[in-house]
Amino acid sequence: MQIIKYPAKEQWEEILKRPSMDFASLFDKVKITLDNVRENGDKALTELTKEFDNVDITQFEVTNAEIEEAEKLVSLELKQAIEMARRNIWKFHSEQLNEFSEIQTSPGVYCWQKTVPIEKVGLYIPGGSAPLFSTVLMLGIPAQIAECKEVILCSPPDSNGKIHPAVLYAARVAGIHRIFKVGGAQAIAAMAYGTESIPKVYKIFGPGNQYVTAAKQLVSLNDVAIDMPAGPSEVEVIADETANPVYVASDLLSQAEHGPDSQAILVTTSEPLIEKVLEQIETQIEVLPRKEIARKSLNNSKIILVESIDEAISITNEYAPEHLIISTRSYMVVAEHIVNAGSVFLGHMSPESAGDYASGTNHTLPTNGFAKAYSGVNLDHYFKKITFQQLTPEGLTNLSNAIILMAENEGLQAHSNAVKLRLNMR
Amino acid sequence: MQIIKYPAKEQWEEILKRPSMDFASLFDKVKITLDNVRENGDKALTELTKEFDNVDITQFEVTNAEIEEAEKLVSLELKQAIEMARRNIWKFHSEQLNEFSEIQTSPGVYCWQKTVPIEKVGLYIPGGSAPLFSTVLMLGIPAQIAECKEVILCSPPDSNGKIHPAVLYAARVAGIHRIFKVGGAQAIAAMAYGTESIPKVYKIFGPGNQYVTAAKQLVSLNDVAIDMPAGPSEVEVIADETANPVYVASDLLSQAEHGPDSQAILVTTSEPLIEKVLEQIETQIEVLPRKEIARKSLNNSKIILVESIDEAISITNEYAPEHLIISTRSYMVVAEHIVNAGSVFLGHMSPESAGDYASGTNHTLPTNGFAKAYSGVNLDHYFKKITFQQLTPEGLTNLSNAIILMAENEGLQAHSNAVKLRLNMR
Repeated sequence: MQIIKYPAKEQWEEILKRPSMDFASLFDKVKITLDNVRENGDKALTELTKEFDNVDITQFEVTNAEIEEAEKLVSLELKQAIEMARRNIWKFHSEQLNEFSEIQTSPGVYCWQKTVPIEKVGLYIPGGSAPLFSTVLMLGIPAQIAECKEVILCSPPDSNGKIHPAVLYAARVAGIHRIFKVGGAQAIAAMAYGTESIPKVYKIFGPGNQYVTAAKQLVSLNDVAIDMPAGPSEVEVIADETANPVYVASDLLSQAEHGPDSQAILVTTSEPLIEKVLEQIETQIEVLPRKEIARKSLNNSKIILVESIDEAISITNEYAPEHLIISTRSYMVVAEHIVNAGSVFLGHMSPESAGDYASGTNHTLPTNGFAKAYSGVNLDHYFKKITFQQLTPEGLTNLSNAIILMAENEGLQAHSNAVKLRLNMR
Repeated sequence: MQIIKYPAKEQWEEILKRPSMDFASLFDKVKITLDNVRENGDKALTELTKEFDNVDITQFEVTNAEIEEAEKLVSLELKQAIEMARRNIWKFHSEQLNEFSEIQTSPGVYCWQKTVPIEKVGLYIPGGSAPLFSTVLMLGIPAQIAECKEVILCSPPDSNGKIHPAVLYAARVAGIHRIFKVGGAQAIAAMAYGTESIPKVYKIFGPGNQYVTAAKQLVSLNDVAIDMPAGPSEVEVIADETANPVYVASDLLSQAEHGPDSQAILVTTSEPLIEKVLEQIETQIEVLPRKEIARKSLNNSKIILVESIDEAISITNEYAPEHLIISTRSYMVVAEHIVNAGSVFLGHMSPESAGDYASGTNHTLPTNGFAKAYSGVNLDHYFKKITFQQLTPEGLTNLSNAIILMAENEGLQAHSNAVKLRLNMR
């Protein structure tokens, strides 16, 4: 890890710079895949699955029999763990339902907002080394609470043509309606355009590699909404002298094991803590199965020594971390000043892994500084809001002068006429 | 207008197809502008403003003196109209503030969500024939309610180097902090990257031509959030035999005068209404200053005769119109079944122009079928939500089995260790 002591404010931008993401450079390549699926449907999916996943698939939809088989393969303990996570995610996201009642903005002008679930949503769950069944819960449960009518899931098949049993089990728990064995940019294309087997959806959620990310960006330009732009995962820990270096090191390593491009940043007011954390990292990393990945990631990672907690807060709001762990004496006071972050973990007993799995908050969060403008996935992401207005003759009369004057000053005479004709004003 | 009688359901997709938008074809061109501004800052802005707006600008920020001068140029009547609109927009958007309180998802696991205003937002207001001061109100007032710290506005200067007085006046009314004379893709670049004069923002709102739209899409890939993807404006009217053809024609024309690519669609159960509406359009269009534009737009427009109101509802949810006017006997019953639309106008006395200016609802709405997944601009667009969690030792103990099992089953040992080390489990 790179150690930076007392950087001047002018250096912050450079220090906090993330590895640059340029998915646009993949667009040409990914566009060929998208166009192929758009034109050739299932035939293209079969070919691309053969090419990228080394398996022949012609029947993409996972059958009930396959799901029931998967259910038997998941241990009782893991099922109980999933149930605990499900319950907490459900509780936290249910609280996010909002009411909005009709208001009269002027006499006779009734306006309201209706929150309507997005009818068709698609979830993408990557394959690869780790079966991300926790992400199935995080993306599926809010869709269930929102009562989206059609929730589908795509995930790449392994070389035996199967999806990991824990993913299938979690999909059933989260009430996913249909599951398809297809991955990569071709899965995104299938959900954006529809094929013979896979229905078109209105919004696509979920993480993925750079091809999946590029594909999501491309289809979002014109065809379908996406959850948010995605980049490598990241954590920042703010720590003072009360922080436990064992815990801090374990949190930095939790992030580092995600992938070689993950970023872990420690911002501290305590110089003695730095050495202790580094020692702990060395001790703990040795026994990790993914230690090679973690080591690579730590090369991108930084420890920043600052003068004061105030400075730590400023640097944090500038960086806008996806995950923020506040391990300081007065962590609640610090938390009050955080305005740019995805999800915040307070105090010494709140590791990021609690939120990754089971506290109930969502783990799909804005990376790459997007926390300055984006929320993590929450119930809002599964709804859109429609506004309604109903005017009585009196209501239209009350607004008529304002509408007519504004429309005519904008050069829009027909807008004005729509009012005048209704009120016999011409 | 094209008249389609009793189309079969299989034909709907073809009938409802919008003119295709391909902003991606402009990307290469627009990217040159973006890169130029990113590298050369104000110097590039001056050159591009000279090229596209035919005016020399070196001081981009509008001064207080200029705003005060503009204020004198706006008539008292228009000021009163703007005040009425402002008050209604403020009322409607203020109602959208949401509360979310802390919950305990498991004993000792406290989770909450904090709604935080996006600190820096930028509004783009096009120049051209119509000064869109109403859009200044629609995009500025929610930012004011949200208490965004820095709200800036960019709009192209006219050939005298000025912005229309009504735009400047509305900006002051809406509490915009700083105003800059720059338009086009270069304005979007300036707000996305920052220049010497113009601060970088975190989210960009506002309509624009195809270059502005392409620029917004490009900067949204990696640098800054945007309000929503944009396409040509559109209205659908559902009408039965109780509809007044004079009003229906005036509403279709309100849409048609926006631009040659605007779409107006009438879906009706009443065959006799069609002839009457066409006659009324001919009568009303003659006196419109923008009749040439309206005629072009009507060429893209359609009248669809359907068997029943149920069919009209289905076709509407398939089309997902930006604006929907329901002029039927039982308009409230129809409204209950609408799930895909931007803003809905109910009954015979609620023209679209009411919502365009003064009812209080927002007029920045999803076009191009995006209403299937997107909301129109509302207060949420100016906030992001940060999740927080605080676990007591008991709380972490309660979750520990779930976290450890799930993390280890996902192959993420360090995630598990972050819990075990805290609970002395190894």
